[in-house]
Order: sequence, then structure tokens, then C-alpha cells
Amino acid sequence: MNFADQLAAATQSTGSVACVGLDPRKASLPKKIIPVSDSPDAWAAAYTLFCREIIDVVAGKVACVKPQSAFFEQLGPAGCVSLGEVISYARLKNVLVIVDGKRNDIGSTATAYADAYLGQQSPWGGDSLTVSPYLGRDSLEPFVEVCDQRDAGIFVLVKTSNPGGGLFQDRTTDGQTVYQSVAELVREMNEGRVGKCGYGPVGAVVGATYPQQLAEMRAAMPTSWILIPGFGAQGGGADDVKAGFDDQRLGAVVNSSRHIIFAHRRAEYADSMGEDRWQDAVEAATIEMNQQLSW
Amino acid sequence: MNFADQLAAATQSTGSVACVGLDPRKASLPKKIIPVSDSPDAWAAAYTLFCREIIDVVAGKVACVKPQSAFFEQLGPAGCVSLGEVISYARLKNVLVIVDGKRNDIGSTATAYADAYLGQQSPWGGDSLTVSPYLGRDSLEPFVEVCDQRDAGIFVLVKTSNPGGGLFQDRTTDGQTVYQSVAELVREMNEGRVGKCGYGPVGAVVGATYPQQLAEMRAAMPTSWILIPGFGAQGGGADDVKAGFDDQRLGAVVNSSRHIIFAHRRAEYADSMGEDRWQDAVEAATIEMNQQLSW
Repeated sequence: MNFADQLAAATQSTGSVACVGLDPRKASLPKKIIPVSDSPDAWAAAYTLFCREIIDVVAGKVACVKPQSAFFEQLGPAGCVSLGEVISYARLKNVLVIVDGKRNDIGSTATAYADAYLGQQSPWGGDSLTVSPYLGRDSLEPFVEVCDQRDAGIFVLVKTSNPGGGLFQDRTTDGQTVYQSVAELVREMNEGRVGKCGYGPVGAVVGATYPQQLAEMRAAMPTSWILIPGFGAQGGGADDVKAGFDDQRLGAVVNSSRHIIFAHRRAEYADSMGEDRWQDAVEAATIEMNQQLSW
Repeated sequence: MNFADQLAAATQSTGSVACVGLDPRKASLPKKIIPVSDSPDAWAAAYTLFCREIIDVVAGKVACVKPQSAFFEQLGPAGCVSLGEVISYARLKNVLVIVDGKRNDIGSTATAYADAYLGQQSPWGGDSLTVSPYLGRDSLEPFVEVCDQRDAGIFVLVKTSNPGGGLFQDRTTDGQTVYQSVAELVREMNEGRVGKCGYGPVGAVVGATYPQQLAEMRAAMPTSWILIPGFGAQGGGADDVKAGFDDQRLGAVVNSSRHIIFAHRRAEYADSMGEDRWQDAVEAATIEMNQQLSW
């Protein structure tokens, strides 16, 4: 099944448009998870355990999960082993996986990244991958070709959620910004690839912190799933993300990382659940997010 | 010692401005290196062996090596272990390492990537890393801050060597292209960081396939080392890259991957050396490249 249709089915079967970002950080892990030994292998095992517990809590309650590769790579090769295990575990639990790697390169190197994360023989087995557009169309096409082989998907960075994202993305040429131009390319790459749900495998990343641009981008890429980061800890709210959806409540997934996975550290859950019941805090935060997103 | 000064010392002690790209590919490995078993671990061990043999040949003959992360990631977690081993081995042999990962993200995630590859506790231990600028200044600054801690360096994608690189990079606003605007940021980030050699830790990637832009970029970023890909297999020649250097023959390193590491497959070496003497072919191709680059 087309990746876009898989994602549509996931949002419909769970009733959720939430994506949980799996961003393990040593300093924020629940105490129970912190390893005795300080070795990379011990931390990697702790990251795997932490993410598995989260997946157990959120499976069936959210549309997808998004492991952030950077935090796993921070542990070195041992962390990469953990990332592989986390992806495998999510898939075992029938949770769609967006690997957040923001990868990109040219020609056969782009193909190598695509094969790595999305290919038929992919040793990581991600369902989709975030990719960066700076190198142009010929750097993205190898990803799309590999997506076709295994019904995988990509999310191209279009308009990012950080304060300085506009420095290059907002530069205007003949009335069109760079991010609008990337959106045009994203739209074009979905041509001939649209699934039953009306969307295709080439998605986009558009931050919740720019609600006006989100509405504009929804219109500019009518067949693209939009991955919306910046909800929760980064300041985006439910009203900010509405514009990313179509009137069937399809077409977007909203990511929250810290607010969910480290919910035991939030004031509203620290006292009632805290360290000892951190999984309950994850569950409560997930339910809260789903409620916020059910307008 | 400032990364820029380390790189200057490396070009001066070796008399070479060449960078050898370590891009292992299953289909191009010498037959002797191909593993008996088809498992990821077996291939990863083969990649490590292959790259170690190349490092043994080129150590002392080239300025640096550049492992391409994509090809290691293509093997999954096992490949990441190999990448770590290859970086460690190069450093053991006193060869500077540019990790070609084209990483980028925002805020604390960018810091995680920087810590991963360049930090004081880096489990990979790269000397420098290629990074993508699409997310803006605040996505690059965490890398520069981490570079300061361990005298590491970055190479920011400015003008890439692929045919379609211009789609976004060449868009012009108020007379300035995107890549010129990225170059301006690169120049600014080196302010206050310039070492004895006249260069700083914030370098740039400018493809050999755009010689005119290379001259322009040399002038626009007078304190930045330029990593020049596209030499050899991608079509760039010695005359094309000259403009990347200052009149002391400093300020740039020229990368060649396939033409060096798979030299045994090139017509000029296939008969005389071929599979059995593939390391000799690597050596001959390295010497040839150094000669081409000694104008």
C-alpha cells in the first residue's frame, strides 16, 4: 500500500493525527532508565528500552513515531544499533516510522541514503525519512525512486520551525520564496504517485510556529502529507496547526517530542506521576495531545 | 591546534592538496575484499578492511580523507560500526578526517549532531563534518560552538557539484544568489576564529564543476577552507580547481573518490595492476592526482 495511504489508515484507525518524536537525551531520561555503567553500549541499551516503553504506550494511540537520528548518533555506533532496534520494534507494533535524519546528497550517494533507510533491502526499515532540499531536484529524485520500490515516503524540509529558518527559506525571487519553490518541487514529484487517500509519498515539513505559511503550504502542496514539528515544547498550539489539514482531517501529522516522552518532567505530571510512573505521564500527555488535536 | 591550522599543516607536510573520498560500494570492491558471507556484519568488516588498506596507502601522501557516511549507513548499524573504525584508524595514522554526513537540524538537535561527530566526548571522533545550511544560521551555530571546544571544523554546503544544484542555490534576490548568501554567513561565522594560517574552522563546499563560482567563492570567503568535490569522476580537472586556492597554495582541498579508491577498475590501471594489485592502483592514482594538482 502507498505510504500516503498507510499514513491515512493509521490516522483513521487510531483517530489521532499525532506523531511522537523519539528524542532520547541522557539528561532527561527517567531515573529508572539511566544505566549503571556509563558506556555507550549501556546508554544505547537504555535508549532502546526507553523508546520501546514509549512505543508500548503510544501504539494504537498515535499515527506514527519519529525517531530523531541525531540523538542516537550522539552515542556513536552503539546508538545506531539502538536506532535500528527502535525502528524494528515500532514496526513490530504496527506503528509507522518517520526516520528524522534530514539526509541528502547527490546522485548515487543520495541513492545510498535512500536504499539505507527506505529501500527494499533496507537494513533500517524505516517507513519514511526526512530529507533536505538544498542540493536540488536531482538530489531528491533518487529518494522518490526508492520510495516507489517499497511504498515508502519522504518528508522534504520546506519551512522549518526554528526562529532563523527564514534566513534562506524566505528569500524571494520574482515574488516566490525559496520555500515556495521547494513546495512547488514537492508538488511536482507527487504527480502520478497519488494514492487512494488523495495524497502521495512525497511529503513536506512545515513548522507549527508559522501558521500563516502552513495554510499557504497546504494549498500549494494539495497532495502532500505535511509533517508539522514545533507543537508543544516549541510553542505551536492546536489552532496553529489546523491549517495543515484538509476538511477530512487528513493531510498532516503533528509532532511532539519532549512534551510527550519527557512528560514526567512537566509541572502537570511531575507531582501526580513523576519518575516512578513516567510511562503513565507519557500516556496522559499523549491523550492530552490527541484531545487538543480533535477540533 | 585550530582545525584550519591542522589542515594547513597537513597540506604542507604531505605536499598534497588532495582529499581521498572513502565511498565503499559493494559492486566496486576488489574481489579479494568481497566477503564470503552476505551478512551486513561481513560487508561492514569488508568496508573497514578496504578503507584501512586505502588509508595505509594514502597516509602521508594526501591532506585528508573523507568517509562518505551514506555508504556506511547503507549497511545499517553494522556499517556505522565500520564508519567508526575507519575514522579511528585514519586518526591513528595521523590522517585528518572529514566526515561527509551533510548533517543539519535545529537547536539542541544540531548540538547533538555536533557533539556526535565533533565534540570533546565524540564517540566518532571526526576532525570535521560537512553540514547543510537550509535551516539557517541558528542551525549552524551549534556546530561552530562545538568546533571551538575541540578544535574541530565544518564544511558548509555552499555551491554543490551536481547538475541540478542551482535550482535553489542560484536563485537571486536583490542581486545576491542563495549560495552567495550562504557564503556570506560562512565568512561571518569565521570572524574571531582565524588561525595562524589565515583560515578558520568554518569551511565551505564548492564543486569543481563550477569553476567560475569557485573563483568568486574564494574571494567571498577569504578565511574559509574550501572542500572541492567533483574532481575526477565527476568531470572537474586541475585547471577547474586552481581558483579555489590562495597564492600560497592554501585554502582548498580537492576531493576524489571513485577515481582513487576504485582505480583498479580504470582503463589505465586495469591491465597493469587490476584486482590483484588494487592497492598499487590506489597509490598510482593518488600520485597521479597529486601531480595534476601541483601546478
